[in-house]
Amino acid sequence: MRPPGKFSLLGFAAVALVFMVTIAHAQNPLPSWNDGPSKKAIVEFVMKVTKEGSPGFVPVPERIATFDNDGTLWAEQPMYFQLAFAIDRVKTLASQHPEWKDKEPFASLLKGDVNGALAGGEKAILEIVMATHAGMTTEDFEQTVKDWVASAKHPKTGRRYTEMVYQPMLELLTFLRANGFKTFIVSGGGIEFMRPWTEEVYGIPPEQVVGSSIKTKYELRNGQPAIVRLPELNFIDDKAGKPLGINSHIGRRPIAAFGNSDGDLQMLQWTTAGNGARLALIVHHTDADREWAYDRKSSVGRLDKALDEAKAKGWTVVDMKNDWKTIFPFEKR
Amino acid sequence: MRPPGKFSLLGFAAVALVFMVTIAHAQNPLPSWNDGPSKKAIVEFVMKVTKEGSPGFVPVPERIATFDNDGTLWAEQPMYFQLAFAIDRVKTLASQHPEWKDKEPFASLLKGDVNGALAGGEKAILEIVMATHAGMTTEDFEQTVKDWVASAKHPKTGRRYTEMVYQPMLELLTFLRANGFKTFIVSGGGIEFMRPWTEEVYGIPPEQVVGSSIKTKYELRNGQPAIVRLPELNFIDDKAGKPLGINSHIGRRPIAAFGNSDGDLQMLQWTTAGNGARLALIVHHTDADREWAYDRKSSVGRLDKALDEAKAKGWTVVDMKNDWKTIFPFEKR
Repeated sequence: MRPPGKFSLLGFAAVALVFMVTIAHAQNPLPSWNDGPSKKAIVEFVMKVTKEGSPGFVPVPERIATFDNDGTLWAEQPMYFQLAFAIDRVKTLASQHPEWKDKEPFASLLKGDVNGALAGGEKAILEIVMATHAGMTTEDFEQTVKDWVASAKHPKTGRRYTEMVYQPMLELLTFLRANGFKTFIVSGGGIEFMRPWTEEVYGIPPEQVVGSSIKTKYELRNGQPAIVRLPELNFIDDKAGKPLGINSHIGRRPIAAFGNSDGDLQMLQWTTAGNGARLALIVHHTDADREWAYDRKSSVGRLDKALDEAKAKGWTVVDMKNDWKTIFPFEKR
Repeated sequence: MRPPGKFSLLGFAAVALVFMVTIAHAQNPLPSWNDGPSKKAIVEFVMKVTKEGSPGFVPVPERIATFDNDGTLWAEQPMYFQLAFAIDRVKTLASQHPEWKDKEPFASLLKGDVNGALAGGEKAILEIVMATHAGMTTEDFEQTVKDWVASAKHPKTGRRYTEMVYQPMLELLTFLRANGFKTFIVSGGGIEFMRPWTEEVYGIPPEQVVGSSIKTKYELRNGQPAIVRLPELNFIDDKAGKPLGINSHIGRRPIAAFGNSDGDLQMLQWTTAGNGARLALIVHHTDADREWAYDRKSSVGRLDKALDEAKAKGWTVVDMKNDWKTIFPFEKR
């Protein structure tokens, strides 16, 4: 029989170890972030707004944080993932649309010539979006997105698109929520393209997703109510649209906002123009080896004016290459 | 020895009884509701969807409940309270608009002739709304609403409008939230007219308020970002608009919905057409002494088609006179 003293000591040691690991983890809530000015700015901001009695304290209901999605929470190269979805849908639906063989932008897409298809500019993109995102019920569209997300693979990494999310940003979402923040997505992407998977992937429920939308119609089909997606734009949640989307869906000003491109500039302006402590953060894609490196000249996720304004106003600019220990969850050892 | 079949049945009954007693008496979550079919339907529904392992169980994130506002959470007689706000604004702003003296619908309003002003129909209402709800920043409008709510008095009771809320519905909101529900307002009223006070009065934060809206514009004023309210309708969150507003703002189907008029019919249809346990409830204004009695022939809060459909489909219809012990919080002894 083990002497009781030793047993207790071992028990105590085990408890102490667990306790220390717990503490260590709590003290390092952002393990994929290297120590540096970005991590410091985040942690100091959170300490400031959560410290009761301090001048920077913000009550829990007002701790609103908004995140862009493409290029901020998940990757956006070599093309916006929603565009990859639309192209896959065009291919799937082509058999029902023999006329697409001779009709742009579909003809080029079906030949695999994406650049040729997009040469038609906004009009071409709109045609592709409407052909693939409208005409069905919201429930059918949701299922189509779920099926695609479960099967489609990224052309470079061979991973599912929902695996191409940024580990440091997942940790940041969790860290903010653990500190009483409500986290929202505010994206130029389609609101109904994101909602089917954001809860599982980011812990962000559908009612906290703001995005671009097309018009819808309510109707009874054989006595059963349905919401049908119409081929008409409703709202573009990008650039000056982002503060409007925030106002419409959230109804209060965020105290923290996270983006990566000029499409996020107005959201960051709106957020930082409020009173009290504010955090504005831009993810700068600087890592050509582990992810992509692009900014002022990129057609996808262009970061130009917002980079200048970030520097002028002292916003936090994440240098992906140096600030992030890990980029994607699948890299973790 | 008792046969096992009978024993199980008795055991089940005993457990059910204890559970019901716990809900109904120990916690007494709905003290202003008289015992009767309405209270029973509510309590049984909540028991069903919250009982883990039961076939009716609904996980917490999907416990979405949507409430109409006018006539469901607060009164709406002798006119929608937002119309009273608009009329008060016309009077306040009249000195800046000398032309209103000779221009309908303003001229009639300024003479105190509301019916004369509203004789102009939708066009007149729209003119009143735009003159009083547009042209300012969202922040200025919010302050105007807060000031009005803090000072304006109901013409019949002399109470503030936010005191004219239904005590049984406040208890219902609390009861649902205590059982893991997220409570939303889905109202034909203006979204920015409600948000400044719903958190304090109902415990419903701005991001859980869905309503009608006008268009907005983002702009920099002397370098400061502002959201400006434009004199153009954006969305009418009434009738078939309610399921669309729910889809746009919440992104999932409610499992419980609460209304009082034909404007809520489609929301109730949409809610009850989902799978699993559903609760659809209509507040029927039957108490001319303590509140008002009106339904099929009322111009405010008309309840006609929805009353027929409620009866046909077995929805819960609250008989205000008999189901509610107390109507307004200020009556409580």
